Amino acid sequence: MRQVKVLGLLGTGVIGGGWAARALHLGIDVVAMDAKPQMESWIRGAVENARAALSRLTLAPLPPEGKLTFTTDLEVMARQVDFIQENIPEQIELKQRVLAQASRVAPADVVIASSTSGLLPSDLQRDMQAPERLLVAHPFNPVYLLPLVELVGGRATSAAALDAAARFYTEIGMHPLRVRREVPGHLTDRLQEALWREILHLVNDGVASTGELDDAIVYGPGLRWAGMGTNLIYHLAGGEAGMRHMLRQFGPCLKWPWTKLEAPELTEALIDRMVEGTQAQAKGRSIRELERLRDEYLLATQQVLKQFDLGAGATLRALEERLYERSGRSAVPGLDAASAGAGGPVRMLDTYVRPEWIDYNGHMSDSRYLQVFGDATDALFRWAGVDDAYRKTGRAMYTLESHVQHVAEAKALEPISVATQVVELDAKRVRLHHSLHRRRDEAVIATGTQLYIHVDTRGGHAAPFEPSVHERLEGLRGAHAASPS
Amino acid sequence: MRQVKVLGLLGTGVIGGGWAARALHLGIDVVAMDAKPQMESWIRGAVENARAALSRLTLAPLPPEGKLTFTTDLEVMARQVDFIQENIPEQIELKQRVLAQASRVAPADVVIASSTSGLLPSDLQRDMQAPERLLVAHPFNPVYLLPLVELVGGRATSAAALDAAARFYTEIGMHPLRVRREVPGHLTDRLQEALWREILHLVNDGVASTGELDDAIVYGPGLRWAGMGTNLIYHLAGGEAGMRHMLRQFGPCLKWPWTKLEAPELTEALIDRMVEGTQAQAKGRSIRELERLRDEYLLATQQVLKQFDLGAGATLRALEERLYERSGRSAVPGLDAASAGAGGPVRMLDTYVRPEWIDYNGHMSDSRYLQVFGDATDALFRWAGVDDAYRKTGRAMYTLESHVQHVAEAKALEPISVATQVVELDAKRVRLHHSLHRRRDEAVIATGTQLYIHVDTRGGHAAPFEPSVHERLEGLRGAHAASPS
Repeated sequence: MRQVKVLGLLGTGVIGGGWAARALHLGIDVVAMDAKPQMESWIRGAVENARAALSRLTLAPLPPEGKLTFTTDLEVMARQVDFIQENIPEQIELKQRVLAQASRVAPADVVIASSTSGLLPSDLQRDMQAPERLLVAHPFNPVYLLPLVELVGGRATSAAALDAAARFYTEIGMHPLRVRREVPGHLTDRLQEALWREILHLVNDGVASTGELDDAIVYGPGLRWAGMGTNLIYHLAGGEAGMRHMLRQFGPCLKWPWTKLEAPELTEALIDRMVEGTQAQAKGRSIRELERLRDEYLLATQQVLKQFDLGAGATLRALEERLYERSGRSAVPGLDAASAGAGGPVRMLDTYVRPEWIDYNGHMSDSRYLQVFGDATDALFRWAGVDDAYRKTGRAMYTLESHVQHVAEAKALEPISVATQVVELDAKRVRLHHSLHRRRDEAVIATGTQLYIHVDTRGGHAAPFEPSVHERLEGLRGAHAASPS
Repeated sequence: MRQVKVLGLLGTGVIGGGWAARALHLGIDVVAMDAKPQMESWIRGAVENARAALSRLTLAPLPPEGKLTFTTDLEVMARQVDFIQENIPEQIELKQRVLAQASRVAPADVVIASSTSGLLPSDLQRDMQAPERLLVAHPFNPVYLLPLVELVGGRATSAAALDAAARFYTEIGMHPLRVRREVPGHLTDRLQEALWREILHLVNDGVASTGELDDAIVYGPGLRWAGMGTNLIYHLAGGEAGMRHMLRQFGPCLKWPWTKLEAPELTEALIDRMVEGTQAQAKGRSIRELERLRDEYLLATQQVLKQFDLGAGATLRALEERLYERSGRSAVPGLDAASAGAGGPVRMLDTYVRPEWIDYNGHMSDSRYLQVFGDATDALFRWAGVDDAYRKTGRAMYTLESHVQHVAEAKALEPISVATQVVELDAKRVRLHHSLHRRRDEAVIATGTQLYIHVDTRGGHAAPFEPSVHERLEGLRGAHAASPS
């Protein structure tokens, strides 16, 4: 089978466009064929759209982008390519006819792969010449970002064709999953389809809306499925005894009407197969190790989703807003006193040096000083009225400069606190002075100043503070005027 | 119903431990009850394990951690708590008996919630006193990190109890999903169970292993499910016509044997319900907008998973390794040239703005500027000879001060680079100047200077550089003398 330098696309819908974008990005030329000439501008648009995302997939040095050409002539395409990916509508007779036609033109060492969601390769290769190079290679939307591709061979498919296809898909950054037996829907769509049909039943029976059913996944199991599948997750749910315990505990539920899908009988042979499978997946890692890994990616994924205000990230963001709001009123009581003229720096933050903040010298990393100062700044600004609701009106505080001076070292788990003063203020700018203390003896570990500007984020320019915000900051400045940095 | 200050736990397995950890972390006292006294050390261990993860969930100011007490006496627990969460084994008679017992002791304004995965609240409340305060509140593992909790009322359940429960769970950082009708398995477990039973069939029929079936989710749909559910995802798959087009296109597949679960008939009424539901979820956003959002979180999630070498992140990491290997680039070639007199700042670092570095304004956080400058410093010092072996001889570089000036903003996933110069050097101290560039157009995003002192870490005082280190830094300083910060 050939080394793939030119990929031919048979059909150019959403899936075809996704294949084109991915292959071009990884340096493969693409010849896209569609009987409708208007699809040329469509697929060029799709590639262009995908490029914005793809350009941020990796910083590794990429080969030069491939070239895209378009034709309405199947034979022109099939004659000049090293690999053909078919993406036409899910109609068996249509696919059979078109694949047979392509196979009469493309040399026998050109692999022909079908993107079919669920048709069987043995049916697809029926009328083909050199049917041994036909296989199913089923991708997922968006094809340019999701790595999964299911590879399924039919009765006539050769091992060489499957191997060549796996090499090609790996080359363009995908994860080829070899499916050992032809079944309608392959593997992934069988699992998705079971879930999807249960959704349709629940909506049909008036039990829940589509949004509620999506929430039922996104805020819970969906977050786990980004990193671990149901089997490994259930292995963890079983505690130290893993999958075997889990099946003992939840086995009876398989007889309960928890879905309209009837389960197979939980025989000893099936239990053994489930246990052996998950033990192989665990690769010798203990339940505790796998739990730690799970917790790590759940934490990190929630931080990511928080930026997009999506699912579990939206919940976390809302929690934080409430916590900040609460602390803005009560946990930093010194602010109210200071703004009322009590004077002096206000203790904004009590925390401790987290173990992951430590550098190779055994001290808190430089960047973490700015992090705790930033947390103190956030608390102060929130108190002054600059919170999420304020930012949603198109105004925000941007940092102009930061200066940190180190006096002593902070070690892991050491309790620390930050005290903050307003040292300069005008209509648009405010300068804060922070000092970081070791709580044990109040020794100063570092000091810092930061200059902030109030910005109209829609206009993209500096803008005066809202009067109420300015007034609160002014109250603090007045109080601190006698004790500058 | 009461404001919850003390949570009572009835049963202390994996789920009970998760509830305890979450509630304590959010400042709620917990009284855990289990008939087995040895469960006290178990639950304390579970809380301790969860704390490592929970402590990194948020930097927002938390209330003081709650206190955990343990008892083997159900009535002692029930008398002193504001809210009871039951987590005993999934046996209906056992649950009915224990819930009835708790209800005779706990005052009528104490909500009693069952963590049951699938039993119906109407059955659970049968023998209770004041059954109107019983509801199902079904969480997901790990309870201390996943926000989803399904709330289901039974025939006797009051709206006040459901409202109070929703408030409490929101308070401890969760997303309460109100389930409108009692059905076995509620919503989430019906969906999970359909997928799970299909898995069991496929393993039972010898089609695939548990690992292959997990891969079928993790590398594809699972990544999507972290941010969007099946319904919204299928709405996107339909192109501009959304769910209606998708149902037209894939409707026929519902009759195909893609799963052992039979679908309901796709009536016009069901189609309308699916379309209306997903339109409500889209909240006026176009397909294109939703696609962009999907692509954003898919990109960011893969970056996160890459750190853990998990699923789609492992595929991406392997791709990058191949690309780097192929390009054959060495680490920082410019340093040798610069020290040999070529002059100018040296490009120390190519990276990109990681999604988790972004603040609530959508820009890279202040502290991350110091982090990338610190990475550039580390690379430079390593090149000069200050590496782990050098530090083990009792010498190190400590930071005296850092100064960052912001010029423009950096957004998530933006490729950036750092260029560094030696601007001052004496026997013990060196000052570096960094500039942070947007790689797209080489625009300067920020500049920084950092002053370092060479230290004898055993004596705890400044000490002259090792001559070879000084010589290498001096080589750089010579080259840069003409272009100070």
